[in-house]
Amino acid sequence: MAETAPAPAAGATTGTSEFDRDTAVVPRAPGVYDADLSAGWTIINAVNGGYLLALVGRALAYELPHPDPFTVSAHYLTASAPGPAVVRTQTVRAGRNLSTGQASLFQEEGGREVERLRVLASYGDLDALPDDVRTTAEPPDLPPVEQCFGPDDAPDRGAVPGSSAIADRLWLKLDPATLGWALGAPSGKGEMRGWFGLADGREPDPLSLLLAVDALPPTAFELGLSGWVPTVELTAHIRARPAPGPLRVSISTRNLAGGFLEEDAEVWDGEGRLVAQSRQLARVRL
Amino acid sequence: MAETAPAPAAGATTGTSEFDRDTAVVPRAPGVYDADLSAGWTIINAVNGGYLLALVGRALAYELPHPDPFTVSAHYLTASAPGPAVVRTQTVRAGRNLSTGQASLFQEEGGREVERLRVLASYGDLDALPDDVRTTAEPPDLPPVEQCFGPDDAPDRGAVPGSSAIADRLWLKLDPATLGWALGAPSGKGEMRGWFGLADGREPDPLSLLLAVDALPPTAFELGLSGWVPTVELTAHIRARPAPGPLRVSISTRNLAGGFLEEDAEVWDGEGRLVAQSRQLARVRL
Repeated sequence: MAETAPAPAAGATTGTSEFDRDTAVVPRAPGVYDADLSAGWTIINAVNGGYLLALVGRALAYELPHPDPFTVSAHYLTASAPGPAVVRTQTVRAGRNLSTGQASLFQEEGGREVERLRVLASYGDLDALPDDVRTTAEPPDLPPVEQCFGPDDAPDRGAVPGSSAIADRLWLKLDPATLGWALGAPSGKGEMRGWFGLADGREPDPLSLLLAVDALPPTAFELGLSGWVPTVELTAHIRARPAPGPLRVSISTRNLAGGFLEEDAEVWDGEGRLVAQSRQLARVRL
Repeated sequence: MAETAPAPAAGATTGTSEFDRDTAVVPRAPGVYDADLSAGWTIINAVNGGYLLALVGRALAYELPHPDPFTVSAHYLTASAPGPAVVRTQTVRAGRNLSTGQASLFQEEGGREVERLRVLASYGDLDALPDDVRTTAEPPDLPPVEQCFGPDDAPDRGAVPGSSAIADRLWLKLDPATLGWALGAPSGKGEMRGWFGLADGREPDPLSLLLAVDALPPTAFELGLSGWVPTVELTAHIRARPAPGPLRVSISTRNLAGGFLEEDAEVWDGEGRLVAQSRQLARVRL
């Protein structure tokens, strides 16, 4: 239960946290934002896709008249590298309750701009939504934090796939039932679950949920596959503003076929509310 | 079981079917296609979102070097009306195994072009995928076709919400367990299931799967809500080329909250293969 979990170490607040610093975008001209992709959010050598989504989501929050991402669809085109980047945004439609925008992230490569990902997103105001909840979804059944494990608990940290720079930014405690892969005995079930927060104690908000849906080790590890599982497309729905405190994240894969798999993520906040749902299509090497 | 279900009436073949005729796009210039939205695919007065997606998907198949939609994300902006439309497409990236494109559908309204939906999509070649299947997903448990019901089986057809022009284009037999709403007794569960085909016998293909994921009555009906449930965003993954014969479609909603719900669709072909998965975010009026 979230209530019994220790809060992540108190530290930076919104605005000065690692997450806010590293997803910052600086307006250069209308619809053009400079950014610097931090090496702190890489898995092995790849910049994490959820981090990229949060950064682009921040640029869209500047562009659009509504503050919060409601549904964000990203198609990943080429692998991003740490370093300078530019985000170009466009308003597609500005409505009363929802507005839709488009954004692309580019990096220079060999003297020309290469597009890394393209995003379509609809934004609204989470605080303006009615308070009704008629969900039948149940939060994942996670053991208490002290019975879960993070990269720091591994005897040989370097041997754990995914133990990369991003591990130092996250406060991640995984359900041992989904950690067979780390011990050489993957369960064969496409499940990954754990407690999620930011290592410096920065509290969750709609932008950090865009990171949370793509920050756990891939379910493919529990299916006995190793190596990179590049995202082709990821769509996230942000359904409510998350309460402070640790989040519960549950990811599942049901259909591994033809060299692709889907990853469905759910994020629950400390008040037991389903705050985000996402699905991605990813490639696997068999 | 699909094997025991009668095949839809044999009739038109691909190319001359109602679906192919009504989703046809005519190249006018590079990346510009003329279309005519048929009144035959409306629900009440709205043009069905899955039909629109298939039409735009066809334009993208012309635009891109790869033939089949793998993942298609659509953000719906304004309600489409039967009549002329234009689709504008753009290649975002052409890779070896996957290419990504963008498309928008416009209609003239009061002398100016209004954008109806914008789509980002990644295309590939389904026939080039390895044949492995390691899915844990199970097909929905549907009663045989003769124990399921379609619009033609309703005593007073006009009284059934959703019994609109599109009903004549589809061969739809719904599981009675998800038909409580039609009898004034919705189950309260966010589920809708049934057998799906095209009324003129046109066999399924990747484009018609884009229709299939959004062609059943909304799950909101079984949750006791009535009226239109407009799609904000829908993303479909096409995972395999469907075998000929009736499809099984299962739709579920777990999270109705804050005036929005998600609808997750699965489409299974007659060989028991999960051929499409989709998720949409839709608005409800409470």
